Amino acid sequence: MVARLEPAITPRPKTGRDKLLAAALDLFSEHGVSGTSLQMIADLLGVTKAAVYYHFKTKNEIVLALVSPVQEELTALADAAEQQRSRTARLDTLVGGLIDLIIRNRSLYAVLQGDLTVAHILDQQGVLPVLGTRLIALLAGPDPEPEELVAANMLLGGLRDAGFAPQIRQFDDETLRGHMLTCARRLLRYRRPQQPAAH
Amino acid sequence: MVARLEPAITPRPKTGRDKLLAAALDLFSEHGVSGTSLQMIADLLGVTKAAVYYHFKTKNEIVLALVSPVQEELTALADAAEQQRSRTARLDTLVGGLIDLIIRNRSLYAVLQGDLTVAHILDQQGVLPVLGTRLIALLAGPDPEPEELVAANMLLGGLRDAGFAPQIRQFDDETLRGHMLTCARRLLRYRRPQQPAAH
Repeated sequence: MVARLEPAITPRPKTGRDKLLAAALDLFSEHGVSGTSLQMIADLLGVTKAAVYYHFKTKNEIVLALVSPVQEELTALADAAEQQRSRTARLDTLVGGLIDLIIRNRSLYAVLQGDLTVAHILDQQGVLPVLGTRLIALLAGPDPEPEELVAANMLLGGLRDAGFAPQIRQFDDETLRGHMLTCARRLLRYRRPQQPAAH
Repeated sequence: MVARLEPAITPRPKTGRDKLLAAALDLFSEHGVSGTSLQMIADLLGVTKAAVYYHFKTKNEIVLALVSPVQEELTALADAAEQQRSRTARLDTLVGGLIDLIIRNRSLYAVLQGDLTVAHILDQQGVLPVLGTRLIALLAGPDPEPEELVAANMLLGGLRDAGFAPQIRQFDDETLRGHMLTCARRLLRYRRPQQPAAH
């Protein structure tokens, strides 16, 4: 599990591109995406605007670069869940992975969620609705009953909101993960799959 | 229950103001809020722009006029839930009311939700975060455990999303209401309060 806890944004950026993304996220959190310019990012890093421009031509590209690792992980997670044969194993893979992903990206989401410029950029990109439909299909299962579709939609919306709600921002990652898993299992009515015996 | 099913937007508008709001909602659904002008609303109604201006000075005022009945109902619902003594009665009042409200306003939400202009207008107004905090406090109860806070946040985000998710847009109101209630009770772990015996 430890490996899955590493943040998508490397905490100690090494490459110029990583440093740039970290600086952009800092500025986004303070000024919003629309209030941040490429020049401000360059100033914060003490480089020329051309140096920023070398990596990213527009602010949109920076936002997508911040978000696309999450989208790729979601796709990989859906792939992994699809390989599972039983409903329990599929849900365990998917729900556990979703919760890990949301928790690992709490700080990213806290900055980008609710930012209308970000919403607009992602809207134009159009990846999220496709991913959302795929995740709902996996959560609800084949030939789902109406109740399963409602529960799947409630879970996805619920996890997303709960990940950065002000009331639970205080909880540490492990606490939040445990409670989210408990609530998700209750909502979707599945139990933790039996663990293989330790050897 | 029948009385609670009446839509917030009167289906057969009678006053000029109601007609105007219905026309605005029609245009919003087709062109988005940012793509709709007061002139377009006037044209659709076959009146002058001055006639529109008599009721609403700006498009923002129209959006708020569409949304404010829902906000008022949410406040009244929170008031009613606060009067309940037992947890079960409080949750039953609040959750049932929330679900009714969401379902009655499915068409309004389908139009306004995801519209960035609307999000911006509501953001500036600032009523929703206050209401959200109050609803979470009521759902989680006094001195809530972390798990109750997570469940309350998941419920609120989940119900909101499930009300207009594309996958469940096909369900009729009664079907959706029943499944949402079942899922909500599972998530918050409360049972339907005992009904008074029929007489």
